[in-house]
Amino acid sequence: MNITHIEHIGIAVRDLEATIDYYEQVLGLSCYSVELVPDQQVRTAFFKVGETKLELLEATSPESPIAKFIEQRGEGLHHLAFAVKAVQPALDLALQKNIRLIDQAPRPGAEGLNIAFLHPKSTFSVLTELCERPQS
Amino acid sequence: MNITHIEHIGIAVRDLEATIDYYEQVLGLSCYSVELVPDQQVRTAFFKVGETKLELLEATSPESPIAKFIEQRGEGLHHLAFAVKAVQPALDLALQKNIRLIDQAPRPGAEGLNIAFLHPKSTFSVLTELCERPQS
Repeated sequence: MNITHIEHIGIAVRDLEATIDYYEQVLGLSCYSVELVPDQQVRTAFFKVGETKLELLEATSPESPIAKFIEQRGEGLHHLAFAVKAVQPALDLALQKNIRLIDQAPRPGAEGLNIAFLHPKSTFSVLTELCERPQS
Repeated sequence: MNITHIEHIGIAVRDLEATIDYYEQVLGLSCYSVELVPDQQVRTAFFKVGETKLELLEATSPESPIAKFIEQRGEGLHHLAFAVKAVQPALDLALQKNIRLIDQAPRPGAEGLNIAFLHPKSTFSVLTELCERPQS
């Protein structure tokens, strides 16, 4: 799959501002962006930690996948996103290996990346995202 | 806290060999170490992904913290470990900010690191580890 690094770690939170405050005031990280992602019904906050980002995710509606996750499991670590050179060949490879896909093809995600999710039923319960930076 | 990067991401698994196989055969990562950590009652497997590691954790006894985690929540993302220059001053700072600590002082962890955990009750339910590489 040519994974180069961990692009980000997604964390489900109930209260975006209170959690940003913890990551800034206690861990000393700096939030560089708060973004609304309407089609996922979330508000996100991003922090850079070395080559990886933390992505805090707050639901903006009870139907949001994040609201459902928190209802079932509580807040906390939500997904793991790997940076790959190209998402489609990585999805093709996963399919060949009988991995169940959430996204059959890359779609636009936060921060201008093209992304796709593998289904946690096939990934030992780690919701796994693949991300590529589009060629400009 | 002078966090430099994400040292590793801990993932609780039921079957270490089957999960290693997924990370190697599907994601194309390479397991470079399998280590028994008797005082935590776990067997771990490590993968390097850029500057970060994935640490798979399998319980070796029903009393292992990993066995209890899986019993309550199922397998999946377990903890987030930040690399810091020095753990003790980071713990002192966390205490000043009224963060509850699991470890009051650094202790030896996997891979020769000194480590300490912050309590998830104080970290918005993300079990958070701080790691330093001892000066040689």
